[in-house]
Amino acid sequence: MARLLRVNMSDITTKFEPVPEQYQGLGGRGLTSAIVSNEVDPTCHPIGPLNKLVISTGLLGGTSCANSGRISFGAKSPLTGGIKEANSGGQTGIHLGRLDILGVVVEGVAEAGKFYKLIVNAEGAELVPADDLKGLGTYDTVEKLKAAHGDKCSFIMVGQAGEAMLTASSIACTDTGQRPTRHAGRGGLGAVMGSKGLKAIVLDPAGGHAPEMADPEAFKAAAKSFAKFLTSHPVTGEGLPAYGTDILINILNEAGGLPTRNFSEGRFADAEQVGGEHMNEVTTKRGGVCTHGCMTSCVIRCSGLYVDEKGDYVSKWPEYETVWAWGPNCGISDLDLIAKIDYMCDDFGLDTIEMGTAMAVAMEGGLLEFGDGPGAMEALAQVGQLTPLGRILGSGTKTVGQVFGVKRVPVVKGQSMPAYDPRAVKGVGVTYATTPMGADHTAGYAVATNILKSGGELDPLSPHGQSDLSRNLQIATAAIDTVGLCLFVAFPVLDSPESLNDVVTMLNARYGWQLTVDDVPGVGQKVLEMELDFNRRAGFNKSMDRLPDFFKREPLRPHSAVFDVTDEELDRTLDFSS
Amino acid sequence: MARLLRVNMSDITTKFEPVPEQYQGLGGRGLTSAIVSNEVDPTCHPIGPLNKLVISTGLLGGTSCANSGRISFGAKSPLTGGIKEANSGGQTGIHLGRLDILGVVVEGVAEAGKFYKLIVNAEGAELVPADDLKGLGTYDTVEKLKAAHGDKCSFIMVGQAGEAMLTASSIACTDTGQRPTRHAGRGGLGAVMGSKGLKAIVLDPAGGHAPEMADPEAFKAAAKSFAKFLTSHPVTGEGLPAYGTDILINILNEAGGLPTRNFSEGRFADAEQVGGEHMNEVTTKRGGVCTHGCMTSCVIRCSGLYVDEKGDYVSKWPEYETVWAWGPNCGISDLDLIAKIDYMCDDFGLDTIEMGTAMAVAMEGGLLEFGDGPGAMEALAQVGQLTPLGRILGSGTKTVGQVFGVKRVPVVKGQSMPAYDPRAVKGVGVTYATTPMGADHTAGYAVATNILKSGGELDPLSPHGQSDLSRNLQIATAAIDTVGLCLFVAFPVLDSPESLNDVVTMLNARYGWQLTVDDVPGVGQKVLEMELDFNRRAGFNKSMDRLPDFFKREPLRPHSAVFDVTDEELDRTLDFSS
Repeated sequence: MARLLRVNMSDITTKFEPVPEQYQGLGGRGLTSAIVSNEVDPTCHPIGPLNKLVISTGLLGGTSCANSGRISFGAKSPLTGGIKEANSGGQTGIHLGRLDILGVVVEGVAEAGKFYKLIVNAEGAELVPADDLKGLGTYDTVEKLKAAHGDKCSFIMVGQAGEAMLTASSIACTDTGQRPTRHAGRGGLGAVMGSKGLKAIVLDPAGGHAPEMADPEAFKAAAKSFAKFLTSHPVTGEGLPAYGTDILINILNEAGGLPTRNFSEGRFADAEQVGGEHMNEVTTKRGGVCTHGCMTSCVIRCSGLYVDEKGDYVSKWPEYETVWAWGPNCGISDLDLIAKIDYMCDDFGLDTIEMGTAMAVAMEGGLLEFGDGPGAMEALAQVGQLTPLGRILGSGTKTVGQVFGVKRVPVVKGQSMPAYDPRAVKGVGVTYATTPMGADHTAGYAVATNILKSGGELDPLSPHGQSDLSRNLQIATAAIDTVGLCLFVAFPVLDSPESLNDVVTMLNARYGWQLTVDDVPGVGQKVLEMELDFNRRAGFNKSMDRLPDFFKREPLRPHSAVFDVTDEELDRTLDFSS
Repeated sequence: MARLLRVNMSDITTKFEPVPEQYQGLGGRGLTSAIVSNEVDPTCHPIGPLNKLVISTGLLGGTSCANSGRISFGAKSPLTGGIKEANSGGQTGIHLGRLDILGVVVEGVAEAGKFYKLIVNAEGAELVPADDLKGLGTYDTVEKLKAAHGDKCSFIMVGQAGEAMLTASSIACTDTGQRPTRHAGRGGLGAVMGSKGLKAIVLDPAGGHAPEMADPEAFKAAAKSFAKFLTSHPVTGEGLPAYGTDILINILNEAGGLPTRNFSEGRFADAEQVGGEHMNEVTTKRGGVCTHGCMTSCVIRCSGLYVDEKGDYVSKWPEYETVWAWGPNCGISDLDLIAKIDYMCDDFGLDTIEMGTAMAVAMEGGLLEFGDGPGAMEALAQVGQLTPLGRILGSGTKTVGQVFGVKRVPVVKGQSMPAYDPRAVKGVGVTYATTPMGADHTAGYAVATNILKSGGELDPLSPHGQSDLSRNLQIATAAIDTVGLCLFVAFPVLDSPESLNDVVTMLNARYGWQLTVDDVPGVGQKVLEMELDFNRRAGFNKSMDRLPDFFKREPLRPHSAVFDVTDEELDRTLDFSS
């Protein structure tokens, strides 16, 4: 029987409770958004005692369903001021599921300056002072936690950035090799965890067990069929396992939608030097790992291990969005340097996207020249040291724009845009503008249909049909995030809708439900409606569902494209009232 | 015939035009808000080419009416994102009026990095490169301008902060001694002037003349009568001339409404050491000046010249809000040091209020100890040097709160609260929350009735009646700001309503109008409605008409007061729809 774990940082207590009736049937993002929407005052200060950090494994968390181990983190965002869910790979979602815990709700705040670790195992949960971890990066934190708790546990933690409540800070989760490489990156949720005085969570799976099944055989058959869909689709079966997400560099460059030098161009001359093909080549030559799963249930294995010329570990394979943010977007073409930056962001506990876009805006504001990789790395190092410059950068792109007096600041709802220019990939532009999460490609990945021809084709340069595309994807994504599946399952699901039957069968077999495929959009829509309602109560309105003005005025090379989806189209995208 | 001067910074041209019909009958804030509301896209970037900086003298600007020389600056604010008007004393409003110019509209932006000065005289207006002024503080700027244009001119300019487009930057105006001591401080309007590449405006009154009058004799009689009201009221005739605005330190301290150490208490133990009585004593002893008018038409003369022990000039007398912001609010009790800080803020072109509250928040965030005056001065010096820390501080209180992870951040609509705790002076709390300007005491100075017993009495600790009080004062203030009168005329006007007859008589005598006293509130309401409409179109809504949460939750000593005016009362304050 899955439970909620309530953790009160004000009086340093923990308490298990059955999942309240109103939250039943939800997991992952559905659960975090329901609890945040229901229990958090939308007008509270995000780093104050009234905010809650909600952590949840998906509905299939801990099962043998392929790629089902995503873990969701939710709170009122210190970056956007609205509701936020960010999810992460790694082992922690699986471990939560095997410990019979659907969600963890972290409430209150500890005494200022005090930090604790939360230890969760089959016997229960307790908060323990963590003075020894204070001020450490995530890699050093893991070393201490491994020494204390062993090499079977997984860990959730913040680095220096989260401790300092910087609004670009992430929450790190360990991967299959106990590396702190998987992050709930967006929305500054590390600042919420840091504000509560919670440095780390230790999940000890010993004594845990696979979730109970209403119909084990049906589950097994559907899981097998679903895995086959994943391994046989060209994107999830071939492209991602070989080249990682960084395969997108050359694709987006070719499409003219690779934002370059702070969104001033759509193509980067040195794109090949930082693309996935090159990463594969370098990694292979140096004896690194090109195909690696962040969680044990993964059959796609889009990650890798980046090594230096001596074959020593530098970082996990940087994701496409990381390579883009610090590469083309900063005019940097040195992949070795970008891998080191990836490690530093992971270590300090920072969102690589928000930080790379912040650096590009700082470059436009005159801090450094575009292309100055060593300068960028040195400035990033200052975030870990919490110097004034480090604090500015760690406060994210919007703040950097304000502090350096820059006009071209690519943010929506205070959160920076990721690696797809909305002028050249208009469907994702609609998602940036309208998702309750602030600019976020994962909320409705229209790149799939605009560029990758998954789920049909839609001209990325035409404004027509993008609103419908984004809406359908946002609904589907909210459902996927509730089930706890890796978003990459969307490729086979979009192209082989029958694979969705397997997911529904697994949910029914796990819980004894009678869902049909037709019920799925309703789940996604319900989650979005809760999120939109929270934001309305927090004071959001339609004027915030807009891209910055320069996307409408400055044509993007090579297509001379501007963002021309109308405000009316944007407004109807998530209007469920009619 | 009063004219508008249009200045285009994109093509470096100037053009005079008759005041368009739709703007006739307006001046000062009424004119700036009308032009901003009518001509500026509410969604534009405040430091981009679509914003306009509008400068206007009041309807009685340049006349012999006592205290009528205020000059208004308006734009979309880089600090609040909404409409902004900030007005200033000094000679520039009078000179504009004598040059037959009702308003100056600065449009477009110059090439990045280029700065110009605008020279206006009886012959016309021209833009001239001002490379020699670039990077200078306002005091050095004045020296260069005096050398070039003589000692009869008045000057409007930005310092290093405005050039760098920092959002706490002000616009400086020179006083009767050509000192850059009078500032349109609030809302970051210096950043707008800086963004346009306009470093300074030179107003040469030679060849100008007193405004034409429809009925010179009637004007003269009413002006004489009005001046008598000002000089015979105890506040404007005795208190302010002797002790300056700083007389309020001991009054607010006694009332328990003097925000101390970042709004954590309502009384400061060392208040006397920084109060107006002490300032008068020190100034008298050292041979400074205790009674000094910032403009030639002033009969109140609330300013002074602060000197050091050798009798050398340190700054003009710091205003009450400046002394408070850097004194009690930072736990600092050294008036000599505060006077030096006042000079530095004037020189860099910074809002003393926004900067002092930013410093207090930084202190709470751990930058310095409360009370560390030398440390605060050193940090402030970094704003002039544009170091990273200087840029953080110069970006204002809200940004400092974000960058340093502070929960107690006293801002409304992104602008910091001034020197009256809204828990102990609830009428001004309603003004902070509801004025379209962001937290601003001058928008509806309920301190008058709550504390000073002007215009009646209303218990400052009771929530009842504060909404009505604030509304009436906001309407009256918008009218006063349109006429271009110093706000201190409100004391005699509140206590002797017949003095308002004189103002109306002067307006009619100047323009040949047939106004009555009953028409005045309509003028104020019309101005407010334009401003509220702009903000609505910029995306503002009721959720922004709120004080930060901690004012409702943390009781303020000594009265254990919280801010308990209801949201419904706040919402009806400026609801003119019924």
